[in-house]
Amino acid sequence: MTRKIDSSRTVLVTGGAGFIGRSIVDAALEAGWSVRVVDSLRSDVHGDQLPLPNQVDFIHGDVTSLDEMRSALRGVDVVCHQAAKVGLGVDFSDAPDYVASNVLGTSVLLAAMTDQSVSRLVMASSMVVYGEGRYGGPRGVVQPPPRLVEDLEAGMFDPLDPQTGRALDPLFVREDAELDPRNVYAVTKLAQEQLANAWTIATGGSAAALRYHNVYGPGMPQNTPYAGVASLFRSALERGEAPRVYEDGGQRRDFVHVRDVADANVAAMAWTEDQRRTFRAFNVGSGTVHTVGDLADRLSRYTGGPAPVTTGQYRLGDVRHITASSDRIRAELNWTASVDFEDGMREFATAPLRAAVV
Amino acid sequence: MTRKIDSSRTVLVTGGAGFIGRSIVDAALEAGWSVRVVDSLRSDVHGDQLPLPNQVDFIHGDVTSLDEMRSALRGVDVVCHQAAKVGLGVDFSDAPDYVASNVLGTSVLLAAMTDQSVSRLVMASSMVVYGEGRYGGPRGVVQPPPRLVEDLEAGMFDPLDPQTGRALDPLFVREDAELDPRNVYAVTKLAQEQLANAWTIATGGSAAALRYHNVYGPGMPQNTPYAGVASLFRSALERGEAPRVYEDGGQRRDFVHVRDVADANVAAMAWTEDQRRTFRAFNVGSGTVHTVGDLADRLSRYTGGPAPVTTGQYRLGDVRHITASSDRIRAELNWTASVDFEDGMREFATAPLRAAVV
Repeated sequence: MTRKIDSSRTVLVTGGAGFIGRSIVDAALEAGWSVRVVDSLRSDVHGDQLPLPNQVDFIHGDVTSLDEMRSALRGVDVVCHQAAKVGLGVDFSDAPDYVASNVLGTSVLLAAMTDQSVSRLVMASSMVVYGEGRYGGPRGVVQPPPRLVEDLEAGMFDPLDPQTGRALDPLFVREDAELDPRNVYAVTKLAQEQLANAWTIATGGSAAALRYHNVYGPGMPQNTPYAGVASLFRSALERGEAPRVYEDGGQRRDFVHVRDVADANVAAMAWTEDQRRTFRAFNVGSGTVHTVGDLADRLSRYTGGPAPVTTGQYRLGDVRHITASSDRIRAELNWTASVDFEDGMREFATAPLRAAVV
Repeated sequence: MTRKIDSSRTVLVTGGAGFIGRSIVDAALEAGWSVRVVDSLRSDVHGDQLPLPNQVDFIHGDVTSLDEMRSALRGVDVVCHQAAKVGLGVDFSDAPDYVASNVLGTSVLLAAMTDQSVSRLVMASSMVVYGEGRYGGPRGVVQPPPRLVEDLEAGMFDPLDPQTGRALDPLFVREDAELDPRNVYAVTKLAQEQLANAWTIATGGSAAALRYHNVYGPGMPQNTPYAGVASLFRSALERGEAPRVYEDGGQRRDFVHVRDVADANVAAMAWTEDQRRTFRAFNVGSGTVHTVGDLADRLSRYTGGPAPVTTGQYRLGDVRHITASSDRIRAELNWTASVDFEDGMREFATAPLRAAVV
């Protein structure tokens, strides 16, 4: 793919020592950006650290600190905001930490950007803002209500048509679909987007929100309640155990490689240069649909480990199917994923994991 | 109107020393509730304090403190959450304080409620979550884009149909309309609602969000950047100056009296008792539409002060027209406003103001 090269510009990557941020640092350097990283190095988020390239200007700081962010933003042209607490959390007592890390952190970052006249933002968002995704029934597009405990207990995992009681067919979600955040993490990602939108209206800045599908790849931290299911399966296989697949394994997802996600961020960074007073969201997926069962199967196979076990367990607030259209980012940012699922899984299955979070 | 009386129950009113909270305290006592208040008594929010009735259990505390909220929640049956930083703010540097006060505060409150097994919530929300409201054009319902600086500068204040370029007709917004928060305050109110929704899903609790129209009445703090336009006009007249009306004065609003809003809260408190795992939003308005120019006119007339001056000034992010349907709350909570506009304005025009915020 083609990329705009501009060696005179500086990007600040927040959370640049993390799983996705670290990959963005590499892609930005390759595209000719000067790169500064600010990262809190929180052990509960990162586990151990990936070393950063020598030419990166590293600042140990937290996005919730206005003074630290003002200082980190001096001379910066664009911010790529990846710092966040991710995942579903343990229970509702986690909510204040999600809100402080994600929503308060983003508000402080945006206030500091306003103060330092930095007018371009790319930010990490997530497919979870759509809630249960979109489904088709005999009467057209349906947005189903939350799944009921009774249905889940009975092994009825697919959302049901409220009219007919029959399972609905999953559809591809577009960026202008109605948003329906159903857990605290999703609420915080949507609030981050909406703060960015309000900031573009108030200040004339430009912002792109990248709604990531399920990101995987080398450098994922292992075995934390906040890491994705790919990391949990890898960690189980590392211990010689079978991956434990929730529900019936039929949850449809789009697994997108971290290097592709990094490239999408670099494309969005360039895009912000030509925008004024614009906020735009882009889905970021590989464009191919697989199930959580497929994921477990490939990881077992490529590591030569035990076959997956499907448990029928579930978590309230989990999304059954979420597959979104990545047409907009292809059309407007000229980005498409380049890593094939089988290749990516083969590499991921055998790449070293980062140490466990302490 | 009829009200459920239950003298054995305790409500915790957060922000109960504030303008709306103080009125809810009176209404709850009258309806037979035991009332506890937690309030931070922030001088930038409240100005001076209204004395609370003797039978109220007052706690000086902040909703962002988990320990203080856990302690305040002991023995509480329902929380009526009014503590918030309101208004449009001065500039984007206010954003972190809005997020901390409103979003972080609500997340801490909900975590503390979970910890203390308090499962019923009524919370203050706002019409601002709808953004520009809804409009009708020749092609049906239109959700217009943000107004352009060029149009506002040219005195073209009404949102324009993107297709025809002609001014649109305002419609009544229902609770299931698409939400479109366009300033930081609106983002924080919507995030509060969505956190409450996520909490009902995660914990089985019940929550009502009351989307207030423009609330006015005795006890409004005067002349702060965070107070409503009614308070600003009153303050000008108090100084012997003409109220300065932004735009052309034709902004359509629904001015609802604080005593009616308090009654709506008490009705919602009773409603939560019969709900499980339910979040529901209710518009709270008088049901009658007036303009900002009408408001200035009545306040000038009833105080005998100078006539309003229409300035043509505007603020980016301000909403042109916002009038919502209060059908749902009438049907489901058996609540309607009882204070007539002329009576309410006559009383408000001559009632003492609270001292200015320091």
